[in-house]
Amino acid sequence: MNETVAEKAKKIDAMIEGFLPKEEGFASTVMSAMNYSIHVGGKRLRPMFMTETYAMFGGTDDIVYPFAAAIEMIHTYSLCHDDLPAMDNDDMRRGMPSTHAKFGEAMGILAGDALLNYAFETSLKAFDMIPDDLSDADKVEMSRRISKALSILAKKAGIYGMIAGQVVDIESEGKSSSEISMDTIKFIHENKTAAMIESSMMIGAVLAGASDKDLSVIESVGSDVGLAFQIRDDILDIESSNEVLGKPVGSDEKNDKATYVTLAGLAQAKEDVRMISERAVGNLKSLHASANESGKFLIALIEYLINRDK
Amino acid sequence: MNETVAEKAKKIDAMIEGFLPKEEGFASTVMSAMNYSIHVGGKRLRPMFMTETYAMFGGTDDIVYPFAAAIEMIHTYSLCHDDLPAMDNDDMRRGMPSTHAKFGEAMGILAGDALLNYAFETSLKAFDMIPDDLSDADKVEMSRRISKALSILAKKAGIYGMIAGQVVDIESEGKSSSEISMDTIKFIHENKTAAMIESSMMIGAVLAGASDKDLSVIESVGSDVGLAFQIRDDILDIESSNEVLGKPVGSDEKNDKATYVTLAGLAQAKEDVRMISERAVGNLKSLHASANESGKFLIALIEYLINRDK
Repeated sequence: MNETVAEKAKKIDAMIEGFLPKEEGFASTVMSAMNYSIHVGGKRLRPMFMTETYAMFGGTDDIVYPFAAAIEMIHTYSLCHDDLPAMDNDDMRRGMPSTHAKFGEAMGILAGDALLNYAFETSLKAFDMIPDDLSDADKVEMSRRISKALSILAKKAGIYGMIAGQVVDIESEGKSSSEISMDTIKFIHENKTAAMIESSMMIGAVLAGASDKDLSVIESVGSDVGLAFQIRDDILDIESSNEVLGKPVGSDEKNDKATYVTLAGLAQAKEDVRMISERAVGNLKSLHASANESGKFLIALIEYLINRDK
Repeated sequence: MNETVAEKAKKIDAMIEGFLPKEEGFASTVMSAMNYSIHVGGKRLRPMFMTETYAMFGGTDDIVYPFAAAIEMIHTYSLCHDDLPAMDNDDMRRGMPSTHAKFGEAMGILAGDALLNYAFETSLKAFDMIPDDLSDADKVEMSRRISKALSILAKKAGIYGMIAGQVVDIESEGKSSSEISMDTIKFIHENKTAAMIESSMMIGAVLAGASDKDLSVIESVGSDVGLAFQIRDDILDIESSNEVLGKPVGSDEKNDKATYVTLAGLAQAKEDVRMISERAVGNLKSLHASANESGKFLIALIEYLINRDK
């Protein structure tokens, strides 16, 4: 499984590459900083969830790619800004200097802004991919799907999604476990992490023409996957060794962060990951996911994510 | 004229107000910071240029309003981030504490991110305003206009527009007049300032169904207006008194910024403002702007802007 994920991630890397800006002109520094931030890498989970969900619902066109590149740009901008001195103040990201550490603080801010803006610039290219020879009725339907996908992208990344999670996370910093409720922790995870997984899967579904009913099932799958993934992250932060993870063990503890694990306890947290991910898989199966390759891959991907040790 | 501008700005304020997020929920701080940043005010020039250009090309629907609100959100986010300690480090904006000074640096970053994201969330609402009872052909045409307007919005605000100008502006800081060429200064003005005026006018034109030929005339008008406006700003920075302007006189000089005025000289700069704005008015007139109220208003607005003393 791990190898399949790596292979798919490689293909996604090549696809994203095609959407990155050329590093040229007077303002080339910001383009270099954007591309550097993307190249630092990652598992490309969000584009993977999007393209596989799209295929699971029968989608076969290239129209999903601008969105798949865009969701990784948004994820990357959020890391750029998270790492800033006024936020989490991290000089390292995946074993490399973080964007602001490499390009300076001003460029760290501007590269993040640029990636967010360019994510919309990129996803809007989907409109240009509507074939000219479609009937007006089909053009209307394609436009409807693309505009709905754009609205999901914007909403889940913003103040009713990822940014909301980031805001509450920042405001919770420095508070001890006794001062933070489980509701707050869940709000952070559901927004800071899960909203972007929901967005990825929902955009895949919408672009392939999924019904509103199926779309809301996919939304809850994405929410569960994101939550389970983040709790697993909290567990790993406690359990893993520095060597395996590539960042200081217990870094959350160092920052005095209340986490799901410190509030629920390690055993309960593990049980919750199992329960939540089983619910996600069950919901996927209710959409006949097991009947096609992409559905089967999504189920295997979820199981891989909640069992990963880094 | 000044009064008409103030009256129109008031109406635009009321319109924007309807698009601002409610300050509620776990993450309400960021919504308060966004709304505060918008409420600190300004001339609302960009929405004004957009709605008047829309009307000049015969547009009469509400579909321009989500875009008019969005362009002000993008302008405001850029000020939010410009004022950050790592950028221009300004604690005051229009006589009020700047966003980061009031809400802290992390929230200054996040409020900016949120405003940029919410600008797209808001402008996408235009798709929901396409009447259901239109023919498919008309729906296709409306979708085409909206998606084109979105692409202009994204492009002119990003690395081929406003952000490019901001990047070069930051990189030019601390360099003396002998180290910065007029080409660089023009690049900064044409991107940091003019791109958003071009965007405003072009979106108004596109939504009203302007031809590609008229659209490119409008683009050059926006470019000229933005450049003339910014040179006038540089002139004011030298000439105005602290009292009139509400910010320290010669603040550009203090930061050792090469400006259009320090490079071209005051007399030449004034002559260029006159020449560039006359060209803009001439181009507007070539589109029969004088034949309707909005066109006449736009011409008067340009003349007001280049003669303003604050």
